[in-house]
Amino acid sequence: MNLADLSCLTPAGSTPLSVNPRLTQAQAELTRPLSVIDETGQSRTIRIPAERGLTLYVDKRELVTLMTLGAHPEWLVLGYLLNQRLIGSVREVESVTVDWDVGAAAVRTRDGIARIEERTARRVVTTGCGQGSVFGALMDDVDRIALPPEARLRQSQLYDIVNTIRVHDSTYKAAGSVHACALFVDNRLLLFVEDVGRHNAVDTIAGWMALQADLPRGERVFYTTGRLTSEMVIKSAQMGVPVVISRSGITEMGLHVAQRVGLCAVGRATNRRFLCFANAHRIVFDELPVTEPVATA
Amino acid sequence: MNLADLSCLTPAGSTPLSVNPRLTQAQAELTRPLSVIDETGQSRTIRIPAERGLTLYVDKRELVTLMTLGAHPEWLVLGYLLNQRLIGSVREVESVTVDWDVGAAAVRTRDGIARIEERTARRVVTTGCGQGSVFGALMDDVDRIALPPEARLRQSQLYDIVNTIRVHDSTYKAAGSVHACALFVDNRLLLFVEDVGRHNAVDTIAGWMALQADLPRGERVFYTTGRLTSEMVIKSAQMGVPVVISRSGITEMGLHVAQRVGLCAVGRATNRRFLCFANAHRIVFDELPVTEPVATA
Repeated sequence: MNLADLSCLTPAGSTPLSVNPRLTQAQAELTRPLSVIDETGQSRTIRIPAERGLTLYVDKRELVTLMTLGAHPEWLVLGYLLNQRLIGSVREVESVTVDWDVGAAAVRTRDGIARIEERTARRVVTTGCGQGSVFGALMDDVDRIALPPEARLRQSQLYDIVNTIRVHDSTYKAAGSVHACALFVDNRLLLFVEDVGRHNAVDTIAGWMALQADLPRGERVFYTTGRLTSEMVIKSAQMGVPVVISRSGITEMGLHVAQRVGLCAVGRATNRRFLCFANAHRIVFDELPVTEPVATA
Repeated sequence: MNLADLSCLTPAGSTPLSVNPRLTQAQAELTRPLSVIDETGQSRTIRIPAERGLTLYVDKRELVTLMTLGAHPEWLVLGYLLNQRLIGSVREVESVTVDWDVGAAAVRTRDGIARIEERTARRVVTTGCGQGSVFGALMDDVDRIALPPEARLRQSQLYDIVNTIRVHDSTYKAAGSVHACALFVDNRLLLFVEDVGRHNAVDTIAGWMALQADLPRGERVFYTTGRLTSEMVIKSAQMGVPVVISRSGITEMGLHVAQRVGLCAVGRATNRRFLCFANAHRIVFDELPVTEPVATA
């Protein structure tokens, strides 16, 4: 998949993408070599993921520093602002300019962000990896989220998705120590994002989604390598994704939110095993194991 | 190990523990049952870790909400304040009162915290799990940390530690989805703490350590199931622990800090394998594998 084709960064004159923000396409190395000593006392070279600070300035006001792998900083910035509810649409942003030399992302909005001091004042340190600081009243919005009641996940789909992730080329395979998130529509992988903090990964997907004029219709499924924490579940629901699959387990807050918004939360998904923690009515069991008849000797 | 014996919460009249803060000993369930549907379509009951909000009020001023498992909230609060450098010693705190009914921890200080607004203003969202929001200039303090240059870790010790963790009874074994941290002195496990956010786990250990009048002398080693992020490495160094062992890998910032403070960072430690990412001179290879002579047929 060629992501460059999809990101469509303000082609001059076209509508409605012409109201998308102007974005740089800052590049950075995603891994670096490191000489280590192993248990035999020998030196060898491995790769570790990069991790760099990206300080966000919104209309020249410093907002936050995100620690990130650096694969898609512009989408990350947009997704961060969206998921923190600091903007309602990417169209409120005129431009995002990332400069890795100084580790800065300059966001210029069209009309400013109202009451930004007040809205970034409440501090909650949450359980999820990375981006622990969720400004303000994310949970207050939960009850306004309406996920499509008819959305279903077939068991065969679930197995396909887990397998697609398994064989996908990744920084994780090269260097470990990153989390991956992925967006599927009708089992087609639309975007695969890794980051040192997994909330960066989901924010990056949110930012990318918001830039798309025509996201394919169909069953949206979100995959994450990380735990199903409250933040992960809330963010999925905010992106209109009714099914989340994780390799890991669920936290109690994640469970509460999933139950409350009607999100189907599937965890411990490896090979052909999984557990559905909430809203199992969304799963269609089309690949139940065939019970072998007991051989009579 | 009976932790109650060690926590010594202000026994009347004794010195110097009598200047320790008064602490409640709030109790909470650490896991809860959950009915799930597995891949066969059958219902079964598993346990998941609890996750509860604990809002810190310092001298009646709301500071932060931590999401926590709830095993040792008072030590967590003290460790949080210490590791955020909001207090320099637990003796600055008169009392910590945790009430799970309202999810609140009321901290009363002896003399207030100077410039608390200013010192909690800078926001960095870091990579580590949980507690991403490190207020202010943690990194500014790094160069003041002096770890004992002579501290060493024997390979046999490392294997013992990994094995002690492996066989330790835990919420992880019962319910998954938590991170563990543990403090060893001369290979004796002093404290094992789990939390939904692993920075809570290390803060809890820091809080507990600060309450001890006589921490045994000897080689301090810190174990964590999580990645060696910058926060994890900084906090270990702040606790005077020169060796950290992880089941996971390292991030680039974690590596930078470990190199800068002379901390021996060991990762990918499972069974008898490991990688030393930084300061391998601290490892004494006393269990190198014996090379089998090649059999001549």
